[in-house]
Amino acid sequence: MYPNDGFRELDRQECLRLMAKVPVGRVVFTRQALPAVLPVNFRVDADGAVLLCTSAASDLVRAVDGAVVAFEADEIDSARFSGWSVVVTGPAAVITDPAEHERLARTGPRSWAPSPWEVFVRIEPDLVTGRELVAGHSRYGLDP
Amino acid sequence: MYPNDGFRELDRQECLRLMAKVPVGRVVFTRQALPAVLPVNFRVDADGAVLLCTSAASDLVRAVDGAVVAFEADEIDSARFSGWSVVVTGPAAVITDPAEHERLARTGPRSWAPSPWEVFVRIEPDLVTGRELVAGHSRYGLDP
Repeated sequence: MYPNDGFRELDRQECLRLMAKVPVGRVVFTRQALPAVLPVNFRVDADGAVLLCTSAASDLVRAVDGAVVAFEADEIDSARFSGWSVVVTGPAAVITDPAEHERLARTGPRSWAPSPWEVFVRIEPDLVTGRELVAGHSRYGLDP
Repeated sequence: MYPNDGFRELDRQECLRLMAKVPVGRVVFTRQALPAVLPVNFRVDADGAVLLCTSAASDLVRAVDGAVVAFEADEIDSARFSGWSVVVTGPAAVITDPAEHERLARTGPRSWAPSPWEVFVRIEPDLVTGRELVAGHSRYGLDP
């Protein structure tokens, strides 16, 4: 972006702290060669990985397991020109380790869609970027 | 998704009506071969196209002009297991027609980032899908 464009870049720690505040984010992936996006519940793990919970038979699992995906969370007040957005980009994989599955079954995210075959998906935080929309700036509030 | 999974598919008219209620959505595209997502202000045009406003020099314009993108908007109350999400998928293009640009400069979406070289981007509503998270369902509220 441009200097004084109304956005402030966030560092990795700020990004992960903000993400952990909201319950819902959006996983961004490719489905049948088209861009796709789906809101989901999530948790941020201690190392910054994004954890999702979904049905083992879902389209989402088929599309993201083994693929590089993006995961976005935000909190934006459009009227006040304030808020933030964070994106984690990295490979996604279904968790197959039984002990790790067990840990997440106790402490991990919950799925909205009940299924007897739930799996957890982990998105590695290879790239964590974010920006804050600086309050007080507006389209007409700055000399461009 | 599965029958009785807590989601209701929305038809095209419902999707467009819901989208028009919220000011912020997320444009989903590919940047340097990676999935990317950016929250933006938007408007829904009379024919269902999604309209964005951004700087002519932005990364976003370079990435989406001429590409098929997805655009997502939602309103979700995670605690109550209720809300909706809508995705419009189609080709995006910068509006180059002066009369159309003029119309949107009067009535179209506003950018958060001020720029002397603003352009409007139109996303064709080739595919409009959405779903409602049916209130009252929860992970443990349904027999799977």
